[in-house]
Parts: sequence; C-alpha cells; structure tokens
Amino acid sequence: MPELRRDPIVGRWVIISTERAKRPMDLRAERIELQDGLCPLCPGHEDLTPHETLAYRPTGTPRDTPGWTVRVVPNKFPALMIEGSLGREGEGLYDKMNGVGAHEVVIETPDHEKQLADLEEPQIENVLWAYRDRILDLKKDSRFRYIMIFKNHGAAAGATLDHAHSQLIALPIVPKNVAEEMKGALDYYNYKERCVYCDIVRQEINDGRRVVYENSDFLVLEPFAPKFPFETWLLPKAHDSSFEDCHKNEYANLAGALRVTLRKLHRALDNPPYNFILHTSPFQEMFNPHYHWHFEIMPTLTKVAGFEWGSGFYINPTPPEDAAKFLRDVTDR
Amino acid sequence: MPELRRDPIVGRWVIISTERAKRPMDLRAERIELQDGLCPLCPGHEDLTPHETLAYRPTGTPRDTPGWTVRVVPNKFPALMIEGSLGREGEGLYDKMNGVGAHEVVIETPDHEKQLADLEEPQIENVLWAYRDRILDLKKDSRFRYIMIFKNHGAAAGATLDHAHSQLIALPIVPKNVAEEMKGALDYYNYKERCVYCDIVRQEINDGRRVVYENSDFLVLEPFAPKFPFETWLLPKAHDSSFEDCHKNEYANLAGALRVTLRKLHRALDNPPYNFILHTSPFQEMFNPHYHWHFEIMPTLTKVAGFEWGSGFYINPTPPEDAAKFLRDVTDR
Repeated sequence: MPELRRDPIVGRWVIISTERAKRPMDLRAERIELQDGLCPLCPGHEDLTPHETLAYRPTGTPRDTPGWTVRVVPNKFPALMIEGSLGREGEGLYDKMNGVGAHEVVIETPDHEKQLADLEEPQIENVLWAYRDRILDLKKDSRFRYIMIFKNHGAAAGATLDHAHSQLIALPIVPKNVAEEMKGALDYYNYKERCVYCDIVRQEINDGRRVVYENSDFLVLEPFAPKFPFETWLLPKAHDSSFEDCHKNEYANLAGALRVTLRKLHRALDNPPYNFILHTSPFQEMFNPHYHWHFEIMPTLTKVAGFEWGSGFYINPTPPEDAAKFLRDVTDR
Repeated sequence: MPELRRDPIVGRWVIISTERAKRPMDLRAERIELQDGLCPLCPGHEDLTPHETLAYRPTGTPRDTPGWTVRVVPNKFPALMIEGSLGREGEGLYDKMNGVGAHEVVIETPDHEKQLADLEEPQIENVLWAYRDRILDLKKDSRFRYIMIFKNHGAAAGATLDHAHSQLIALPIVPKNVAEEMKGALDYYNYKERCVYCDIVRQEINDGRRVVYENSDFLVLEPFAPKFPFETWLLPKAHDSSFEDCHKNEYANLAGALRVTLRKLHRALDNPPYNFILHTSPFQEMFNPHYHWHFEIMPTLTKVAGFEWGSGFYINPTPPEDAAKFLRDVTDR
C-alpha cells in the first residue's frame, strides 16, 4: 500500500509509492516498455488493462471489447490504491495515512495515431462527458475529497504512453494548491463580494490584450501573471463553481474552445509537450459563490530550476500579451 | 525593465522578462551559446562579465583580473535590474511593480573542469563565505526583503553554463514558498513552543533510518515527506534562524557535510543534475526562535507532470528510508 505523508512544516502531502520502490539507477528509465509493442490503450487490447469503469459504446456491445469511442480504465500502475481505509496516524511529529484513492486513465480516442487536438468537436465533447460521469460516480465514495483531472501530452510533459489519454486521481485530502486557490478566491470574495474569476473575465474582455479566443460560453486567455510562457486558461464566462454542473450546451462549447486552443498551441509551438489541469471545487464545497472552475494549459517549454523550486517565484521570458497576440494571429486549421 | 506581477488568486509573484521577450520558437534553445567557445567564468576572461562585486584574491591583485579563488559577478542576463524604485501599482484588479533586484553569479572555482563536489573542503568553505559576504552587503539595501541562493547543476536542472557556479537573487518581496515555510514553522512554534526543525533533528537522530551523515554541527537526512527521490536536507544541529549568522567553525563543518553529501549523490546517482537551495530567514525577521536555516538538495531524476502542477502533491517512487540507506552505504571517495 502506498503511503501518504505530510510535510511537517508547510503541510504538503506526498505519495510515497512503497510498492514499486525504484532503485537509484531505475529512476531514469521512466518510459513504460510496451509488451511485444502492443499499445494497451488500443481497441482489441482491452485485456491488457484492468476492467473498464466507463465506456461510451454502442448499446449491446459487451464490456472490455472494441467498439467504444471513449473508455475509462483503472491505471495498471496506480499511484494510489482503491481498497482500504485511510488509517490516519502519527509517527513522532510526522503525519501519515494509507495511500487510498482512485487512479484512472481516460482513453480519449480509439485511434492510436490521433492526439486530442486532432479530434472532432463531438469526440472532444465525449471526453469531457467522461470526466463528468467519473466525477459524479467517484463523488459517492465518502473517503474522497477531491478529483484531480489532468493530461500529460508528450514525454517532456510526463506522458509515458503515446496513445491519447488523460488521467484522474481521486484523493482523500484536498491538495495544497487547490486549497490555496479556494482560500485566495474566498478572501477576495469576502473583501469584494464578487468572484475574482468573474472579475478577471470582465476585465480581460474589456482589455482584450490577453484574450486568445472566445465563444458564447467560454473565454480563453493568457493570465496576467503566468508561471510559464504560453500558459493558457479556459474559463466559463458565467459563474459556476464545479465542472460537473455544466449545462449540456456548455460541454459542447467547451469542446469547441478546447479544440481551437489546442490547435493554436500546436501550430504556434510546433506540437509542444503540455499539461492541462481541470481546476474545480472540492466535494465539500461544490456550490459556492467564490470559486469558478476552469482549465489551465501549460506547454512545457522552459525548465524549472533552483530559483523556482526555492521561491515559488517563476521567471517567464514571454509576456502574456505577446503570447496572446501570437495565438490570436495563428490559425487553428 | 522586467515586471513583477502578482497572481490575483494565490498571490504568487512572477517575473516577466519584458526586455528579452522570447518568440515562441526561441523558447527551446535555452542554452547560452559561448562566444568563440570562450567560457566567461574562466580566469583570463574577466572582461566577459560585468565588474565583480566580490572576489577572494591575493592582496594587491587588481579587480577583474585572474588570481581569484571565488569570484562573484552580476549576471550578464539578469532576471531583475539593480537600478530603480519599486513603483508598486495596480492595473484594474491586478498588482505589479518594477522588476528591481540583484542577480549575481558566484563562480565557485577558477578551474573549468571541476564541479563543486570535486573541490577540497577549504574551497567549498570559501564559496559559503562568499554567500555570507554577499548577503551581508545586499542586506543594506532597504528595497530588498529576501536573498535566494541556489545552484543549478547540469542542463536538466536548468544550468546554462558548464563552469561551476551558483546564483543569488535579491528580491523586493518575500517569495511565496519562503513565506509559507516561515508561517508553518511559526504555527508549530506557537503550538509547541519549540522549533519544528529542532524537533526534526532530534527525532531523526534518534530514529536513524533517514540519516545520511552527521558531523559535530550538521545533520544530513532524507526528509520524511520528500517531493523527489533522493531529496536531501542539510540542517545545523543547533538552532539558528539565519545562515549569515553562523560561527566560523560552522562554515568549515558545513563545507565538510556538503562535500560528503554531494559526493555521495554523485556516486549513487552517476553525476545527477541537481538543484540546491539555501533556506534562510527573510531580512525583517532575522533572529527568531521558530525558523531554522538549512540547505535542500534535489536531484533532477523524475519529471514534474500535470498531477504535481495541479495539486502541489508529489508522487515519489523512492521511500526516503531506502534512499538514506543507499547514500549511507555508498562511499564519498
């Protein structure tokens, strides 16, 4: 069972994977070797993954067989284990608990050759629905407090398999970065009685310099203080604290905005490695006036070094106004 | 003038380098091209750097000439500019100020072929004295609130020059990570009336499983909840809130502990890229009972991906107990 351990000074939790402990020399070979070159995420290889937890497939086709358009499976090498109790306990001044959680892989397309940016809008919308359906299901498990949904595209961004996929990790605690965002947004709300993200949406639309794209429901922008060059946010224009509460037409418009954004980044930066992360409210505070769910996309273009690790300060060589202009001007074809 | 911008939600500051704004395609070529292959940090090339701010050299030898053992110069491509006022102002709901600060390079040895781990103890001690002397000097500038001292070793850890060097950045604000550590340590102190780091030193010496090395003044350990495999901390055994207040003999013992640690990491991980960071109290609270200065060394062995960026949670595949045993057993010859 992996262990969750808490840093005694700043309270950050880490997952110590005791089961697949790596010897020093193994640490460099992070890429998963495919058995006989078979991609475990491809149709026809459903037996190479654990049983699916969700699949969109024609009515009547059996579980774990081809025919699906989106398929969600438990991660074969999970960072956390789904079985067990939390077992919180101390060890002298330290705190730890069992590494309980869900770790699943969302296979975004049956087509091994396509990346998310290549998919048609309805297929991207399917992926978003799969995120939502899994959130609604995992929410029922009272051990969990947050679900982190993210995507690693390209080896430099941490992807270990080529086939287009995103991941979700359900956690028994609200992660530090999420708690900080919630607190920052709540502080602003308490002071102004307005949502800080709603204020950002209004100011950015008026200003225009950092806007990349917008449609009726979504605004795509380069944030005022981006950590990384070409960091890009997708925000719903209307206030909504949780991703899973979106209206049906919003998922369609989100799919459109995400597709345009990924294609522009692909064009502008020559298929960059990137991470994207869904930021949404923790389970305990799903409906609230201060937090505003959104996506953050971060191309992996610069290296994080000692200064950033030590300070939490980032040095960004590309002003967001320049990045936004560049992305506005580049085609999404 | 670079700009400091504050994230309106979590309050993190970023440095936007407006002067050397990079076009998308330039972002990948981060390594500095040497003019005619000349290393600007080597003796004899003193004219390739700005004028030195400190050098340890034989009495009577002129500034900016060979003969030095350690030399500190302003960074030729600084992230922040030394001249100017802070100019704090708003921009709608956003906050920004001028990118005022010092950015210097500490050249650790005249020998281009040696890395820090190769140096003899007295030379490493010289490097530590140079850190101290620069802190004491820059402290006099009332615009600054913190000095971050760090080292990037190897390209994967962000180094852009091969010649052994570390860097310091004096900042007009206390960076987020430092403020968090100070607050966490103060919360613990308010609750327990003891320094959390002093408690860690005591518990780890008693426990022994995470200890890598110790001498009379310093303890080297793998922390209980490390973000990364082989993350290693060097802590003074006696309580001291600021690095620059060390006694003379402590710098000698720190040089010894740092040398052993770097050599063990070099041996165990085959000359890994790494970052180290000096953690010390901000200028406004130099003498205090709750914070305990220390070094943190982080080999760059795993990739930070979407989950870590989104959550602030880290997945560490190597338990610190295993890493400590490995480092204890490996020779430092």
